[in-house]
Amino acid sequence: MATMATAWELMRGRVGELEALDEVAQLLEWDQQTMMPGGGAPHRGKHLATITGLQHSRIADPAVGEWLNTLAETADPVQQAAVRNLRRRHERAVQVPVDLVQRLAEASNTGFGAWLDAKGNDDFARFQPALQTLVELRREEISHLGEAEHPYDHLLDVYDPGSTTAQLRPMFSRLSDALSAFIQEVADKAGPAELTERFDVVGQSRLSQRILKDLGFRTSDGRLDVAAHPFTVSLGAGDVRLTTRYREEELLSGLGSTIHEAGHGMYEQGLPQRWAGTGLAQAAGMGMHESQSRFWENVIGRSLPFFRWLTPIMQEIWPSKSITAEGLYGAANRVQPSLIRVEADEATYNLHIVVRFELELALMNGDLEAADLPEAWDAATDRILGVRAPGPAQGVLQDVHWSAGLFGYFPSYTIGNLYAASFRYKMESDLPEMWTDVQNGRFEDVLGWLRTNVHDRGHVRDAPELFKEAVGDRDPVADLMAHLRSRHGALYGVS
Amino acid sequence: MATMATAWELMRGRVGELEALDEVAQLLEWDQQTMMPGGGAPHRGKHLATITGLQHSRIADPAVGEWLNTLAETADPVQQAAVRNLRRRHERAVQVPVDLVQRLAEASNTGFGAWLDAKGNDDFARFQPALQTLVELRREEISHLGEAEHPYDHLLDVYDPGSTTAQLRPMFSRLSDALSAFIQEVADKAGPAELTERFDVVGQSRLSQRILKDLGFRTSDGRLDVAAHPFTVSLGAGDVRLTTRYREEELLSGLGSTIHEAGHGMYEQGLPQRWAGTGLAQAAGMGMHESQSRFWENVIGRSLPFFRWLTPIMQEIWPSKSITAEGLYGAANRVQPSLIRVEADEATYNLHIVVRFELELALMNGDLEAADLPEAWDAATDRILGVRAPGPAQGVLQDVHWSAGLFGYFPSYTIGNLYAASFRYKMESDLPEMWTDVQNGRFEDVLGWLRTNVHDRGHVRDAPELFKEAVGDRDPVADLMAHLRSRHGALYGVS
Repeated sequence: MATMATAWELMRGRVGELEALDEVAQLLEWDQQTMMPGGGAPHRGKHLATITGLQHSRIADPAVGEWLNTLAETADPVQQAAVRNLRRRHERAVQVPVDLVQRLAEASNTGFGAWLDAKGNDDFARFQPALQTLVELRREEISHLGEAEHPYDHLLDVYDPGSTTAQLRPMFSRLSDALSAFIQEVADKAGPAELTERFDVVGQSRLSQRILKDLGFRTSDGRLDVAAHPFTVSLGAGDVRLTTRYREEELLSGLGSTIHEAGHGMYEQGLPQRWAGTGLAQAAGMGMHESQSRFWENVIGRSLPFFRWLTPIMQEIWPSKSITAEGLYGAANRVQPSLIRVEADEATYNLHIVVRFELELALMNGDLEAADLPEAWDAATDRILGVRAPGPAQGVLQDVHWSAGLFGYFPSYTIGNLYAASFRYKMESDLPEMWTDVQNGRFEDVLGWLRTNVHDRGHVRDAPELFKEAVGDRDPVADLMAHLRSRHGALYGVS
Repeated sequence: MATMATAWELMRGRVGELEALDEVAQLLEWDQQTMMPGGGAPHRGKHLATITGLQHSRIADPAVGEWLNTLAETADPVQQAAVRNLRRRHERAVQVPVDLVQRLAEASNTGFGAWLDAKGNDDFARFQPALQTLVELRREEISHLGEAEHPYDHLLDVYDPGSTTAQLRPMFSRLSDALSAFIQEVADKAGPAELTERFDVVGQSRLSQRILKDLGFRTSDGRLDVAAHPFTVSLGAGDVRLTTRYREEELLSGLGSTIHEAGHGMYEQGLPQRWAGTGLAQAAGMGMHESQSRFWENVIGRSLPFFRWLTPIMQEIWPSKSITAEGLYGAANRVQPSLIRVEADEATYNLHIVVRFELELALMNGDLEAADLPEAWDAATDRILGVRAPGPAQGVLQDVHWSAGLFGYFPSYTIGNLYAASFRYKMESDLPEMWTDVQNGRFEDVLGWLRTNVHDRGHVRDAPELFKEAVGDRDPVADLMAHLRSRHGALYGVS
């Protein structure tokens, strides 16, 4: 049996290799969506499957289990955290049979094609069999993963380790009630005007590059490209790649994408490199990742001080347009219940997530089957959001996630919004000059606060603990509601 | 013991995985030289080393040896070729100790840094210790690889399987003598004029894209980018990536790069996909690869009919310039012994290779040590090329290859030129309309000939056999000299 020191060295070697493979997979995905010629598509699946297969066998390797056992009693908190993180991956890899992993991968492939077809034809029936298979395979996977308070916890564990169904359910329920009441209040008020002007794409691109630089994204350690569906990948803190999109008639949407992805990117650039190769120089889950993108996109990027800073920069790019900070601020903070999650405003957005969270819980519990999903969807959106889609394409088929077997990811978005709101209020008390700084385009202290309290902590603590250490006993639901009332409420005269 | 059918299936699975890993490595290298931000550099080595390490362990796996033994008596010629190709890689991986592989990788890293420093300071002494280490490690590697007629054969085997020192030495010697005589003949003749005009980079880029498409490079299955040192990678026949470079004062050099890389790229796009996953849908070595790039760059791309086709296209891009086919043709076919290999004309180029070939043989034999290399270099260039560098930066330090431990690669360039010349004459007899076609911008039949006789053959035969099957009993040295006399000789009035 190896000594603890030897096991730690061997484990670090393996974790370093796994990190490298993960970064290679991220490059393959970035390339697929930005650079790859059309003819490369058939082979790209093979590239990704080869890397994923090697990752699986390197994680499931019995030697990993031995190192973890040797290190089980370590007193070093960094080693403890590294062991916890790797053990999660190792146990899942060992407990889930390889043929189930393969069937899931195939079903995701089939599911994606069926979903595209069903959505294109506004016909849920074309997706139903593939979805039912995916639901059953996920339930089967969960059955291999041992006891848990709630089967859904095993899915949360992948994206948001540390979060539990028991903790999320009451939080989401309180949030849902408070949001519904708030949206009722603003429903028949006259709100701010939309932005109807068009802004050329070249100018938007210049604006995005300028904002990135000023926010604090290190452009020598990353790049910004255009993609149909914006995303961020990291090949290490020195190579973080953002994507965004520009449409002439949707300035605010493109701007929001850039700032959102910059938030993800600055988190990746700020991860603690002293722990590279331990699995701790990683984000503390997707909810915390979303808190960073949402914090910059919403808390900072939709604030009046931010638009006051931005207006003269925009006037320089588009001298012939009449642009005002107040006009942009109003347009960026309208409230309007709508059908499509990704187009939703900051307030109603979370109700879209509540709908999906409820339905996913029922699907994984066995209380709901794919065949009954469209009806359940319509009932839930009607009850929670007060809207009803004219057909499945704009309803139950709108998101790609389930077609790829991704259940348990949606909560991350609202967890991110909740964390971001509490970060706002804690930061306002820690940094009294915060909004003056933003208005002056000085983002160092804001970024510095996130660096110290989030980024530089890596994944030593799981997100719920890390959040508590950062903000203390704050109630994120109350903070998110206060945040929304201070913005949208004030604009609609109901705060 | 597995049956032959089972062994074949298992072997195909492994070869498919190795192909995917190789394509992933190519993406990492392409990205490094075209897209990667500066901050990504430190991590990229780790990505490549991880992929290379996994490749090595998957090739050296004892199971591979068992499949190969089971299939040793196969009567199927495709299986025979696949077994031969994989056996080469497996035996090298098994015979060379892993720690030697690692020492070679480290020495290449160190060597590259030392070479950059030495070249920048025009001081060979700064590179000498690293070079001596690399030479000794390669000799050590060769000592593990068993008997061969000549130690250098073990290096040729990596880049040009099927070529041997015994076969190359007399061929290169005859070529060297004939070339020296020819260059003497033109030495004091007044040749054609240089091209001194400048051409803007945007126009050059348009021209390159147009040429690619017309030659027959499938642009939906590839792309063209800019890189400091042009190269081509393939991620499968559907995703072939070329790079080139443009400088205002060097139109012909950029044009040559584009056509050269297109030649590599069309080979990759034409490999027989019916054999994907067997190791046979691969080029038959680097010499054959260079034959394709050189054929398009030199035989086609420096011909008068080609410039006759190109001139009106260029006149459309640069209407204010006076461009003539004869002027371009002359400028592209000047002969002038010079110091730098990569800037050499088509005739003297091969003498640069002869110099390197001789020195590499002596280094690998143990007849020459790194300390004596500068003197040996100067003596050889003086004798063979009739030039002498003012310092090592423009002499023995000019090429990157040795700094990365690449010995045995240089001959591929001249092998490529030799093959290309014989392809020209065989093609002229098979396709009597060939030059009329080129002048009309119709490249289908030329490409079709290469598709049938080279590309679609994959790596079933090694290059020397494949070459013979394509052209019969032609003498490539005579063909290359005839080709050069028909071009440069005629322009200098000595043909």
